[in-house]
Amino acid sequence: MANDVNRQFKLKQRPTGRIGPEHFDFESNAVPEPGPGQALVRTLYLSLDPTNRIWMSDMDQYMPPVEIGEVMRGGGIGQVVKSNSPHYKEGAYVTGLTGWQDYVVTGEGAPAVLSVLPDGLPVDLPTMLGACGSTGLTAYFGLLDLCEPKEGDTVLVSAAAGAVGSVVGQIAKLKGCHVVGIAGGAEKCKLLTDEFGFDAAVDYKAADWEEQLIKATPNGIDCNFENVGGEIMEAVMRRMNLFSRMALCGMISGYNSEAPMRADFSPILMRRIRIQGFIVIDFMDRFGEGTMQLAQWVAEGKIKHRETVVEGLENAPTAVNMLFDGKNVGKLLVKVADPT
Amino acid sequence: MANDVNRQFKLKQRPTGRIGPEHFDFESNAVPEPGPGQALVRTLYLSLDPTNRIWMSDMDQYMPPVEIGEVMRGGGIGQVVKSNSPHYKEGAYVTGLTGWQDYVVTGEGAPAVLSVLPDGLPVDLPTMLGACGSTGLTAYFGLLDLCEPKEGDTVLVSAAAGAVGSVVGQIAKLKGCHVVGIAGGAEKCKLLTDEFGFDAAVDYKAADWEEQLIKATPNGIDCNFENVGGEIMEAVMRRMNLFSRMALCGMISGYNSEAPMRADFSPILMRRIRIQGFIVIDFMDRFGEGTMQLAQWVAEGKIKHRETVVEGLENAPTAVNMLFDGKNVGKLLVKVADPT
Repeated sequence: MANDVNRQFKLKQRPTGRIGPEHFDFESNAVPEPGPGQALVRTLYLSLDPTNRIWMSDMDQYMPPVEIGEVMRGGGIGQVVKSNSPHYKEGAYVTGLTGWQDYVVTGEGAPAVLSVLPDGLPVDLPTMLGACGSTGLTAYFGLLDLCEPKEGDTVLVSAAAGAVGSVVGQIAKLKGCHVVGIAGGAEKCKLLTDEFGFDAAVDYKAADWEEQLIKATPNGIDCNFENVGGEIMEAVMRRMNLFSRMALCGMISGYNSEAPMRADFSPILMRRIRIQGFIVIDFMDRFGEGTMQLAQWVAEGKIKHRETVVEGLENAPTAVNMLFDGKNVGKLLVKVADPT
Repeated sequence: MANDVNRQFKLKQRPTGRIGPEHFDFESNAVPEPGPGQALVRTLYLSLDPTNRIWMSDMDQYMPPVEIGEVMRGGGIGQVVKSNSPHYKEGAYVTGLTGWQDYVVTGEGAPAVLSVLPDGLPVDLPTMLGACGSTGLTAYFGLLDLCEPKEGDTVLVSAAAGAVGSVVGQIAKLKGCHVVGIAGGAEKCKLLTDEFGFDAAVDYKAADWEEQLIKATPNGIDCNFENVGGEIMEAVMRRMNLFSRMALCGMISGYNSEAPMRADFSPILMRRIRIQGFIVIDFMDRFGEGTMQLAQWVAEGKIKHRETVVEGLENAPTAVNMLFDGKNVGKLLVKVADPT
């Protein structure tokens, strides 16, 4: 094994604003021994997601918050390095909540339950965490099941250059929709139209972003895949059509604040909008279907993807802020170790 | 005919707060003559509804606002007093947007399209405007189609002693739900439990209303039929369960203000709530089904109903405020004339 210690980020205090190293104890502990029926997994890549910030807070949320003193929760991909379980073969790749640490124990009675990835993955490991992993699945189910786009519909997605948003837009194009993305800065907007095939991009950092939004949605908006919340969401909702659909995937603009994430409800009533909040795990029983379809689209070049990879576990607490600053393109990952 | 003039309320200026007589010109005009294919209808009862306030404003809304100088829009029941149309027989009762006036012309080319009610109505005219009319239909479709209550679910309805709310609660009881209503004052709360059969009532005028709400919903809330908006809606949403459903029927607490009707979106995300805004006309193709079912329940005594009847067309602009002050119980009507 490359390390003889298990570096672990344990939550020390809950952030009230931005996340920083001061919110964690970064400990070097002994590498755990897997018990009977268990396996030891080395973390290879960590997935950084807006929800990390939610888990660090004690706000009302969809899983229990990370407790003070507990290893920071996080999704990732790892490799089995030692096993007492026939289910976890040494060398196999596994995915799930590895946590922000070098090593984790899985299997019978262990707190982490990691899924074994099949041999001969059709895509590389970062893509398995991104476009073909929970990120892609979030886009897939949120768009297709909750927004129900029909050919010719206008689909809007915010945080469109992000991991989820870029896949949402590409799936919507595959379904024959007029696709508009909101992103920050000319470079990301260019990426949306030139690389990901969006019909139009709105630069929310430009002074005239709302005019851009109006111009880009001449027929209003039929489907809104919402990642951002706040005033951007309000402006989008003002453009939503009668009987339009909104998948509420996230409201990243509000996560660094303690304030309630308030927005105007009147368009919901007047335009008879349907809103459905969701988390990808709501569709867990259909992950197989989603992963297969996404892998096929990726393999055929129909879904392009980008990753922003930060090297080194030690950088996780600062790297996660790239999500809130809009500094990443596509999936944001931390590379912890190379596979053997 | 009883009157030889047609009294009409025409919108003079849009209210910025409460509605008052100063917002209308109350004119006495000649009774119109029905043209070929048309009929003259005498207004008997006007339905006063929160949406009257929306129509008077120029906010973004689901029908065009009433224009300045136009007769105030309003639903009602009338009687055909003169007819040049085989479709509208003299003496027949009709319903639809009669407007705030004594007489209206319907039929070919007329601006008002009124539906003929069948002979031998199973209930009286006020009930046809209330529990068996658009009010009851609002409750019926909003609850059954959008909230999808299952036996044993906790159903919450706000403005529960109102025309829509009281029917929502009774239908939910018929479906085997635990039903909690929010209303203002001990008297209305007693009416909810003693007359309408609600399991519990929350008095929003009491200092401890939020504690009452928590106590009345020990298993959280599965279905929220929302009529009120504002801080009451926020408190209700904090009690809503995972995968719960909310029919957004109205937000009366916000209609007298120009401010956006903002509320916290985070429970939608965290609890994966489904919200659907609606207006009863969205279900127009199923009005027959709904009316028949409601009339049957009313006839069998399974749905009880109350009306608050204000006498005299001239009182409409002041009477409508009873809705916003919570002074009515059940359906609020203005009686304009007796049937012949």
